[in-house]
Order: sequence, then structure tokens, then C-alpha cells
Amino acid sequence: MDLKPTKPLSGFIELLPAQQRCFDYCAQKMLNVLRVSGFSLLDLPAIERAEVLTDKDNWDEIETQMFLFQKGDTKMGLRYDGTVGLSRFVAGHLNNLVFPFRASQFSKRYRGERAQKGRYREFYQMDLDIMGINSLSTNYDAEIISVISSALNSVNEFIGPNVVHVGSRPFWDALFDYLEMNDKQKKDIFVLIDKKDKMGDEEFALGLKDFLGDTNKENVIKSVFVDGYTNLVNKSEKLDAAIAELTDFMNVLDGMGVKNAKIDLSIARGLAYYTGLVFEFKLIDHPELGTAAGGGRYADLAGKFSKTKIIGVGAAIGFSRIFASMLENNQIDLTRFSNPVDVAVLVMGNENVAYASRVVNDLRNAEIAAVSYLDTDKKFKNQIEYADKIGARFAAIVGETEVAQNVIALKDMMTGNQETLSVEDAIKKIKA
Amino acid sequence: MDLKPTKPLSGFIELLPAQQRCFDYCAQKMLNVLRVSGFSLLDLPAIERAEVLTDKDNWDEIETQMFLFQKGDTKMGLRYDGTVGLSRFVAGHLNNLVFPFRASQFSKRYRGERAQKGRYREFYQMDLDIMGINSLSTNYDAEIISVISSALNSVNEFIGPNVVHVGSRPFWDALFDYLEMNDKQKKDIFVLIDKKDKMGDEEFALGLKDFLGDTNKENVIKSVFVDGYTNLVNKSEKLDAAIAELTDFMNVLDGMGVKNAKIDLSIARGLAYYTGLVFEFKLIDHPELGTAAGGGRYADLAGKFSKTKIIGVGAAIGFSRIFASMLENNQIDLTRFSNPVDVAVLVMGNENVAYASRVVNDLRNAEIAAVSYLDTDKKFKNQIEYADKIGARFAAIVGETEVAQNVIALKDMMTGNQETLSVEDAIKKIKA
Repeated sequence: MDLKPTKPLSGFIELLPAQQRCFDYCAQKMLNVLRVSGFSLLDLPAIERAEVLTDKDNWDEIETQMFLFQKGDTKMGLRYDGTVGLSRFVAGHLNNLVFPFRASQFSKRYRGERAQKGRYREFYQMDLDIMGINSLSTNYDAEIISVISSALNSVNEFIGPNVVHVGSRPFWDALFDYLEMNDKQKKDIFVLIDKKDKMGDEEFALGLKDFLGDTNKENVIKSVFVDGYTNLVNKSEKLDAAIAELTDFMNVLDGMGVKNAKIDLSIARGLAYYTGLVFEFKLIDHPELGTAAGGGRYADLAGKFSKTKIIGVGAAIGFSRIFASMLENNQIDLTRFSNPVDVAVLVMGNENVAYASRVVNDLRNAEIAAVSYLDTDKKFKNQIEYADKIGARFAAIVGETEVAQNVIALKDMMTGNQETLSVEDAIKKIKA
Repeated sequence: MDLKPTKPLSGFIELLPAQQRCFDYCAQKMLNVLRVSGFSLLDLPAIERAEVLTDKDNWDEIETQMFLFQKGDTKMGLRYDGTVGLSRFVAGHLNNLVFPFRASQFSKRYRGERAQKGRYREFYQMDLDIMGINSLSTNYDAEIISVISSALNSVNEFIGPNVVHVGSRPFWDALFDYLEMNDKQKKDIFVLIDKKDKMGDEEFALGLKDFLGDTNKENVIKSVFVDGYTNLVNKSEKLDAAIAELTDFMNVLDGMGVKNAKIDLSIARGLAYYTGLVFEFKLIDHPELGTAAGGGRYADLAGKFSKTKIIGVGAAIGFSRIFASMLENNQIDLTRFSNPVDVAVLVMGNENVAYASRVVNDLRNAEIAAVSYLDTDKKFKNQIEYADKIGARFAAIVGETEVAQNVIALKDMMTGNQETLSVEDAIKKIKA
């Protein structure tokens, strides 16, 4: 019989135990920041109705981008982000939640596209959203940025420092109006700006020319990427208002202690639901990872689910994009995650299993990670080899003598020193 | 425009924030037991190749039971348990793992069948497995049972006490041989025994009659459900060996401190890969939940992936079956999970946002869960109402006076008492 493949499907992440411990440690650190910041962690279904996932009726087209299936008459699929489920959930529980509602999520999302190098088809994102009914101060946009910054800083020993780039959708709207662009031009140019990162300056310039065909207008747009809003003050009330919103916002951010923020009008965020300020975090030491987190303000989150207007600000941290990627590329030193077991209890003879189990239970109850080697017919040599291989700090040897004296022989695996101790004293020594 | 549905698909779980906090708390408690017991937590892909999920070529048939899809030429689907991925993973990483290898998993699994009342189509299971190469003492079967028992006991304030029923596949094999049944009868009777729980005694008796047509043999099998192995000692060497293995095992369990175990030969476990002792946990106070956890020994876990023989013992705890079900039925008092926020910082005027943010950051850095109310144009009345609604223990009021004096007005939301304190002193008071 042919053996089946042991590799996961391409685009799917599979970490080894030490890598996984690091991944989980970073997740817990960041989730704790979210918890003390008052975010309620939600765990929503990974599968949604197709009509929740998309407004389109074009089954064939979306099937190439998502994992979809049909059960009975119901078309459904795996979520591609956390926002779609959150909108549905919040709209369905307006009376069960207190607003402004702070929600966080940490869950797997899926992209059903063909496998491509460096693109995950299953990945974790960590979301945080603050939602209000009808209104919500932009102070909350600053709060979201501040919390993401704290969360990333809580693991900066692994990922280094971060910086946040803040842009403004109203600025572009105002500029497009000032340049008297038509609706089609507005849409095309916005898509072009959103994709600018992925194209060269020349291609971008050609795109502008194609869509606008007006050297003056093209130059005004190009100038934003060089000088920001400098040349665009006092041009229109709407532009001035957008610039004032953005500069005021930067002052609030600064007042909140976020010192790693800068205005970057090239940040556009492709998603249709953003309507206000937008932002992207980058890791200074890891430009290869691209955007580490991104988000912005939406004027109407759940309009498709509820007549109540839910306004808010949200962001997603690309958790797998950062950590799975760094772990897979050996960019994180795993030394401290390599030895999860404190004590290996070695059992010399099957008649000593009961005693050894009491030792193990006492250690575990004292929060000391302990395993017992229960193939008791194996020689001491094999058993101590096991203790060494799993990286146990100590071996606790249990044989006839130790059972008779109600003690253990505790061997320090680093120094080789061995002493006979009561379990109680051994616990003190191990914890010291 | 018609509004889209806000309910999740039937068979999918969606908890409210306080329920979710309880769910997560129980998961963390149990996972901590697994961690100190030396199990490495793995996080494997939820999607596997169809050939990994099943040996069958019958796409249409399995499609009714699973969530399957095709991308390019590759058929794939969502996992229905944790074992299938674990087998593949372990076979693929034989040289990266130390054996006996202790693996745990806590992840979502999927059943693609049509929605039925009380059946989840997406659910969490918590798995633990101990695997050896070529051999593994049955002491490890006892260790698995002991650890599951500790894990369930760690949350017994919510679910009450548990009991474990231990059965034996070799016992049935020996009995079938002793009764000189043919291969077809062995298979049919085993399926019948596995389904006995779900049928009446009469239906079971009729099944036996159908397959065996021998009153004596039928009575011998029926007697096992009444008297256990009592009438079957000294009948055959193979039967005696199976009975001895089981009774010896109960002594080991008892020696390990597992006092809530009993022999129950009616436990058969339907899964084909079990070859030795099998067991099922039940919650004494919650018979309605059925089997809370179940597992057993397998002689060859990964034979389809590797020529190396991986022998082991594994079990799955029906985490959603227990906790989602109890939470959905309001069987858990959520009082202690209802107030996740310690302090609501109320900000009187937008000029005080920066100061308030420093207060919030100081609180959070001291591990005090704090949120700020940043719609600063709202009146005090609205802001204190928010603090009350989210169940904050304290409100920290920040206005012009407090900022000038570098203090906060800390209001105890239970007593209504308010005092002016430095942030440092406030932290001490809140932590006290």
C-alpha cells in the first residue's frame, strides 16, 4: 500500500512543539493586553452562510477565493476575516451588549484561493473593535491604535519596535472633489492608490495618466506621496477639515502616549467599509512582513443586518503573518521554549508506579511540569536518556530504596548532582 | 433592502461575552493541567486532504458527513476529529519528536451532516495522546485516565464529579473466539454492542438473535451486561488473559489515585483503531450530556502514513459537548464572569483625554482591567451609567480639578463612596 502524504496542504501552517509554545506565549501576552483594556473576547463560528460572506450572487467567482460548500439548500463557507461575523453577531445582540462595546477575536480565517508561495490559506488574525450606536468619538480610534501598540510592544522582545502610519479617507474624498474628478475617476484612482505599494512609480504614473489625462491633476496626486498635505492647505474647506481632523488626531495620539505614529496619506486601506481615519502598523526590523496590523473607522458596520446604525473603529493584527512567518523562518530564538518539562520521574520497577504517581501528582499540584517514564522495564540508562532528550531540568528517580524511605533521588540534569530529598523539599528546591 | 439573518447557522455555537469568559476560563484551567502533565499543545490545520480524512473513494457518501471542497485537482475537507491530523503530523515528524511523545490539542472540529437538534456541526474537543515507537506500557493508559480525571476535576465547581468506565476490546475478541463466532458475526455483534446504549434491551436481544441464532451464545453475551466477566473466568486462556489485563489495570489506576474508575465491559468504543483497553468518562450530575470524554489504546496509529509503528493511547474530551451545552442551557452561574472590568475611567472634557489615558495605562500596567469613556461630550450622568452597565467595580473620574491636582476621584460603584487619590494609591486600593 502506498503511504499517504505527511505534509500539510500548501498554505497551511504546522508548527513543532517549541515553535507552538512561542506562538501561544505571544498570543497570550497580546490577548492579556486586550483583556486588561476591557475587550471581550468572542469566538464566532468559522462557517457562515454565503449570503453573510458576500453580497454577490456570482457563486463561481467567489468560489475561487473562498472555501464554499452547500448542505441541502444552504450555501455556506469559511470566513475570510473577523468583521463579517462580528457585524452579524453585534446586530443580533444589540440588547445583550453595552455600547461602546469593545470586542476582540483571535481565530483562524481562510482564503480559498490557489496556493501561492508565502500566502497562507489558513491563518490567525487578532481583531479588536470598538463600536457605538449612532456615534463614537474619534478618541476611540486613538484608543485602538494605543492598544494595538501596547499589544505589539508586549512581545517586542521577539518582533522589535513598531510604527503606525495614519491616513485619512476623507482627505482623499476632499482632494478628489477639489480636483473635480468624476465618480468613475474617484473609484479608479482610489484603487490605484491602494495598490501603489505593489507597483513601481512609473506604473503608478501611467495609471494616473490613463484615468485622469490631466498633468496638473496627476501632479497634485503625486505630490501627496512626496510632501503629504503641505501643498493642499487653504485649497478647499473640505480639504482643510480633513487635514485638521488628521492633525488633531495626531495630537490626541501623542497625548495618549503613542509616540511611534506618523501621518502617511498613502495609507488608503482597500476595504470598502472604511470611511474615516485609517492606519497600518509596520515592524521596523521586519519590513519583509509588510503590514503587521491595519484598521480604521467605519460609519455603518452592520447595515446589512440591522436598521440600527453601528459606527466604530476596528483593526486586525496579522498574527500568523507575523509569528508563523518568523517562526517558520527561524527568526525567533526558541531556547526558552525548548524545555517545557521541569521534572522527569524515572520509575525503577513496575511495583513503584503507584508511589511515582503520587510524586508526579504532588509536583503537578505545585505547578511543576512533570512527566513519568512508565515503561518500567526499561533500564536506568534508557530512562535517563529520555529525561535528557526532553530537556528536563531534573530527574526524580524512584526505586525500591526511595519508596521504602518515602523520598526521591533528585538529579540536576545540568550539573549531574544528585541528592535524596522528601517530595516536599524537592518541590522547594525545584521552585527556588 | 431585506436585512440578512443575524443568527448563526444551526448547529453552530455562539456565546455571549460572559458565557465565553466562562468557556475560556474552563479551557485554560484544563489546558494548564495538561501542560503541567507534560503534554505539548499542537495546533494542526483544520483542513486536510480528502485522502487523509478517509480511505473511501466514495466522494458522494462522505460528502454527506463532512464539509468537503475541491481546489484545482485537490479534494479536501474539514477535520471531524483530532486523531487524523495527529497521525499525519507524528508520522511526518518522527525525528523531531521525543517518544513517548505527549501531545494535546484543543481545536474546532466539524461534522458536515444536516443540522439536527442538539448536535453541533462545529465543536471543540480537547485531545490528549501518548505515543511510543513499537511499544508502550499500559501504565500510560492509566496515566491518560488520571490526567483526564485531574483536568475534569480542575473545573468540578462547574460540572461536578466524574466517573470513568473502563472496558476491554481484547475481552470481546476473546469472548467471540470462545463462542466460536465467524468473522461476519464478530463484526456485526461488535457494532451491535457499540450501539446498545441507543437501543432498548429488546431491540438488542433481537439483534443478537438475528446475527447469532443460538440461545446459549446470546445468553452469554447478555450476561456480560448484567454480571460483567463473573461467569467467564476459566473458560479460555485468552479470556483469562484479557480479564487479568483489565483487573491489573484497575489496580494500577487505583494506585495512581484514580478512585472514580470502574470496570464496564459494555464500553466498546466504535472507532476501528482501538485495539486494547477503552474508557469513557461520565459526569455524575449530568447524565444528559452522555459521554464527557472517551478514548483507548491503538496498536498502530499512523500505519497509513509511515512504516514506523506508532502505538499509543489517546482520548478526546467533548469540550463543547460539556461546556457549550451547559452554558446554552443556563446550567452555570455566570456571576463571577459578568464583570470583567475593574475600573471605568470617566473623562469630563476632551482636554483631559491625555491625562485620562495616562491613568488608564497605569492601571492596565498594574494588571487592572480598565476602560476609558472617550465620548467626552457626554454628561457625567451618561458616563456613570455606562460604568454601572458594564459592571465596573470602580469609576475613576477625571476632570479639570483632578488633572490640576494630579489625582483621580475614585468612586466605589457598590457603596457609592468616593475619594480623591493619587493613581498610585488608587491602584493599591483597587488591588486590595
